[in-house]
Amino acid sequence: MASSMGKAWTGVYPIAPTPFTAAGELDADGMRRVIDCMVDQGVDGICILANYSEQFLLTDAERDTLLELCLEQVAGRVPVIATCSHYSTQIAAARAKKAVAAGAKMLMLMPPYHGATLRADEKGVFEHFERIAAAAPVPIMVQDAPLSGVNLSVAFLARLARELPQVCYFKIEVPGAAAKLRALIAAGGASIAGPFDGEESITLLADLDAGATGTMPSALLPDLIKPVLVHFLAGRRTEAVAAYNRILPLINFENRQCGLRATKTVMKAGGVINSDAVRHPLEALHPATRAGLLELARECNPLALRWGR
Amino acid sequence: MASSMGKAWTGVYPIAPTPFTAAGELDADGMRRVIDCMVDQGVDGICILANYSEQFLLTDAERDTLLELCLEQVAGRVPVIATCSHYSTQIAAARAKKAVAAGAKMLMLMPPYHGATLRADEKGVFEHFERIAAAAPVPIMVQDAPLSGVNLSVAFLARLARELPQVCYFKIEVPGAAAKLRALIAAGGASIAGPFDGEESITLLADLDAGATGTMPSALLPDLIKPVLVHFLAGRRTEAVAAYNRILPLINFENRQCGLRATKTVMKAGGVINSDAVRHPLEALHPATRAGLLELARECNPLALRWGR
Amino acid sequence: MASSMGKAWTGVYPIAPTPFTAAGELDADGMRRVIDCMVDQGVDGICILANYSEQFLLTDAERDTLLELCLEQVAGRVPVIATCSHYSTQIAAARAKKAVAAGAKMLMLMPPYHGATLRADEKGVFEHFERIAAAAPVPIMVQDAPLSGVNLSVAFLARLARELPQVCYFKIEVPGAAAKLRALIAAGGASIAGPFDGEESITLLADLDAGATGTMPSALLPDLIKPVLVHFLAGRRTEAVAAYNRILPLINFENRQCGLRATKTVMKAGGVINSDAVRHPLEALHPATRAGLLELARECNPLALRWGR
Amino acid sequence: MASSMGKAWTGVYPIAPTPFTAAGELDADGMRRVIDCMVDQGVDGICILANYSEQFLLTDAERDTLLELCLEQVAGRVPVIATCSHYSTQIAAARAKKAVAAGAKMLMLMPPYHGATLRADEKGVFEHFERIAAAAPVPIMVQDAPLSGVNLSVAFLARLARELPQVCYFKIEVPGAAAKLRALIAAGGASIAGPFDGEESITLLADLDAGATGTMPSALLPDLIKPVLVHFLAGRRTEAVAAYNRILPLINFENRQCGLRATKTVMKAGGVINSDAVRHPLEALHPATRAGLLELARECNPLALRWGR
Repeated sequence: MASSMGKAWTGVYPIAPTPFTAAGELDADGMRRVIDCMVDQGVDGICILANYSEQFLLTDAERDTLLELCLEQVAGRVPVIATCSHYSTQIAAARAKKAVAAGAKMLMLMPPYHGATLRADEKGVFEHFERIAAAAPVPIMVQDAPLSGVNLSVAFLARLARELPQVCYFKIEVPGAAAKLRALIAAGGASIAGPFDGEESITLLADLDAGATGTMPSALLPDLIKPVLVHFLAGRRTEAVAAYNRILPLINFENRQCGLRATKTVMKAGGVINSDAVRHPLEALHPATRAGLLELARECNPLALRWGR
Repeated sequence: MASSMGKAWTGVYPIAPTPFTAAGELDADGMRRVIDCMVDQGVDGICILANYSEQFLLTDAERDTLLELCLEQVAGRVPVIATCSHYSTQIAAARAKKAVAAGAKMLMLMPPYHGATLRADEKGVFEHFERIAAAAPVPIMVQDAPLSGVNLSVAFLARLARELPQVCYFKIEVPGAAAKLRALIAAGGASIAGPFDGEESITLLADLDAGATGTMPSALLPDLIKPVLVHFLAGRRTEAVAAYNRILPLINFENRQCGLRATKTVMKAGGVINSDAVRHPLEALHPATRAGLLELARECNPLALRWGR
Repeated sequence: MASSMGKAWTGVYPIAPTPFTAAGELDADGMRRVIDCMVDQGVDGICILANYSEQFLLTDAERDTLLELCLEQVAGRVPVIATCSHYSTQIAAARAKKAVAAGAKMLMLMPPYHGATLRADEKGVFEHFERIAAAAPVPIMVQDAPLSGVNLSVAFLARLARELPQVCYFKIEVPGAAAKLRALIAAGGASIAGPFDGEESITLLADLDAGATGTMPSALLPDLIKPVLVHFLAGRRTEAVAAYNRILPLINFENRQCGLRATKTVMKAGGVINSDAVRHPLEALHPATRAGLLELARECNPLALRWGR
Repeated sequence: MASSMGKAWTGVYPIAPTPFTAAGELDADGMRRVIDCMVDQGVDGICILANYSEQFLLTDAERDTLLELCLEQVAGRVPVIATCSHYSTQIAAARAKKAVAAGAKMLMLMPPYHGATLRADEKGVFEHFERIAAAAPVPIMVQDAPLSGVNLSVAFLARLARELPQVCYFKIEVPGAAAKLRALIAAGGASIAGPFDGEESITLLADLDAGATGTMPSALLPDLIKPVLVHFLAGRRTEAVAAYNRILPLINFENRQCGLRATKTVMKAGGVINSDAVRHPLEALHPATRAGLLELARECNPLALRWGR
């Protein structure tokens, strides 16, 4: 796929948060500013409608609005990855088609899941990706994350890559991610165009050592994550380590104490958006957690904290 | 609530299946025929957009279409319960509002959940129901089912009923349902207008003995389930037991081997709908399972098996 | 394996409950009486130390005591299956060895699991069974049950059977058991010596239709379950259905409302044991549930209800 | 409890790993050396038989051996916390009694759990801790960790502390630990003698900011974690932050890539133990992961890496 689909994607592809007004409505102007800020962060691409975009708290109509709005605002400055996960294969395929029609250059999907008990077996997961690939002729990234509650074995992921050439990017964000990436690269060989790190880049260095060529963090500090990749991929591991260690306390705090709320809070402090509201039943950060986050952010001073000031 | 909201609902309120064409599209004509068949089954009300309606395999637009179509087709012949579950409180409340505007007389909701890991704590679940109740002034049924992956304690359910008078119906479909219903009735007293049985009525007799006053089965055989309730609630337990034992083999086969596919297969055999297709990744019944189901159904001969013949 | 290990096992192999005194101690005399009652039930074999034996509430020393006591009391009258599940492969293998040394003729195991998060991948599960088979030269039954939280695919189970000839019995007690048994028999062919039904025989008829040749119910009513198998395996399906439908209400009540407590309560009422105590945090049956159970049991009148009277 | 049970425990209480020989047997001599190394690390106490001791891979007899051996080897140099978790309340209470008789000064327990589906409700969890407290008159630490699969609300934990004075230590290792600790301290007040951080200290600084007064990491680098607490509790937050940031890369690698294997690998490299074997189905670290761990460890140079050299 790497060859037939063009040069493999490497680098930093953060997730755009979805800003809401204090009343919980989509903030279209804020969304445009988020996109502009992210382009200014020097990202290699932008992922939309993902979990850190609160995709599970959006209506279908809001998804459509965001898809159009984000693609329009990006205006080709960087490539866009659109998340299309849905338990229904047919609906996920329709989302995929619509995303590509709107200009998305890659799709990201979790395996099908719903609630605590509805899952597909490997045959069903394979068909899910197969039909979506048939519906939308762009590369596909498999998101291997605990939220789905689906255990995807290395053997199965490698088979997906071998038998479905479009399915060639893999974002691994499960415990022991580096070992899984290493095994996946060994099993999948050239059919793996992009072994990716995820989860706020909390395992980035280990994953780079294991062979990852890209990362999908939040939009909190991609400008500070990018040098880590640039150094590493250029063979300057010592510089990569130094750059990573400087931002690790902030990433760790984001990962463990804040989740998707960290980016919103920092972007609000940085004048990118007017509100860091999340939709219920998600809860606002405790004021002390917010203070702790901003203190750590100020030490790193990512662009999101000063872009709108 | 029972008093302020009118007479308590008792009886059989089955779930309407959502028919699809063989190509996977909504079958509007089939949906109308399903509704007419259910009215002819003598049901006390109809529940739409529930799990057995494949709500997790529908787009928002399809939900809207079905809501309008079903309410229009029912045309007041029986009351309609609309399911409004969504992880987002705001979206669930908007769904509730729309359902009531369209004519639904009761709402049913699971507590908020998404995937394997996103759940609210009791404070969040309480607020979820509180805000939905505020948005839509009709009785609400809490669906306590394993799909949500939320453990709702009896103490919490009773508190919901006491503090939110609209939240006064409880469909219990967890292991040990009868014991939970018994404990809920003891804890909630008069604030529990309707302790309901669910899950295809596989625990109906035990739940009636425990104090249940209604059941929400599938639409496979409500005409044969209704006599069980009528006998029981009129004090004729022996007749209720006899009526129940006659249909138990079919219900057991539905519950364990078929799930939501049973109603569709029987309704197709009975000429109610043209296809028993379910949406991927759900799988069609194995031909042998289908044959086993129809054999059991023929012995009971529910209306769904002959309505369109 | 069927050939090299002797004639394939078919029939009814119920699980022996573990009786406790009211104070929660092992009741050795009660255990002997349970075994004698089960032999009198005409069972084809007895399974010990399983989940319905409350294996998860026993110390290792109590396991050893029960193993010796049960084998001694059975005294070769019927073959004994010993459950050996443990998360540690080494400990499960040591248990297997000890069980065979004590006289067990078959072993039963779930795949390794601990708590909500510790599981092995397919490679680990395979090695687990491989090492246990190497340690103990008897047939092994894989227990495929939701308690383990491990999703065992048909392809994997068939591979276990093909590559590890001792692993040739499979007790399937997951939703859609009949379809899984059918697929397993198709995939595994002659390497499947015993496709078994489980879970209180609540899916017995569907599983027999799918090809099951044995069942592992509780010890509540195996004397009434056996005719179902005898009729069915002799080609008298109508008689099997009739015999099954007579006991289905009791099995359904056991399965949904009581779990492992049903056998104890009926055996206490039947004078087999002196107490139906279960160990905390399991809870005693609610008096109304107990009454409902005994009412249903009296209609069937299984041996356990009258053995000691 | 803090007053009636003596001065509250604060500081670093790491978990002792359980060394095995390459053949998988308990390594008693290695265990003694682990204990001596930990005392030399300057720990405030030692926790034994915990998850990082591979408690789920031990027989009861091995537990007893380890309890005696560890207490004897510690010989009162520091206090010992013994983990006693078991699904059976009776067995957990017996373990608690035995541990205190052997000299343990505190007990640690998770709420009861078994496999994917067996859990107690709040009433059952309360009684579990109540009976164990009655059996063993020492302080008890509740371990609130995802492994148990039990969601313990802040309200419930505070009630445990208020109504069971011995239950006054709480190790919180769930997502958003700092916010939960903050809420627990607010809700429980003086009845919370020890709000503790856990999980390899990966959230230590956030938890200290939230009010934690102790931490229970692995035995990998407690000598380097202790200064963080000492500085922080003495009001020198800046120094605490600096000390923590130096070790964060190693802790992060341990937490995400290695789990309990990290301590063993470092202790083997440091001559404390002869083998870093873990019991199947746990797997050895991939050589590349091991190399990455040791590289990070060498930069910090904890005592475990040089104690036996």
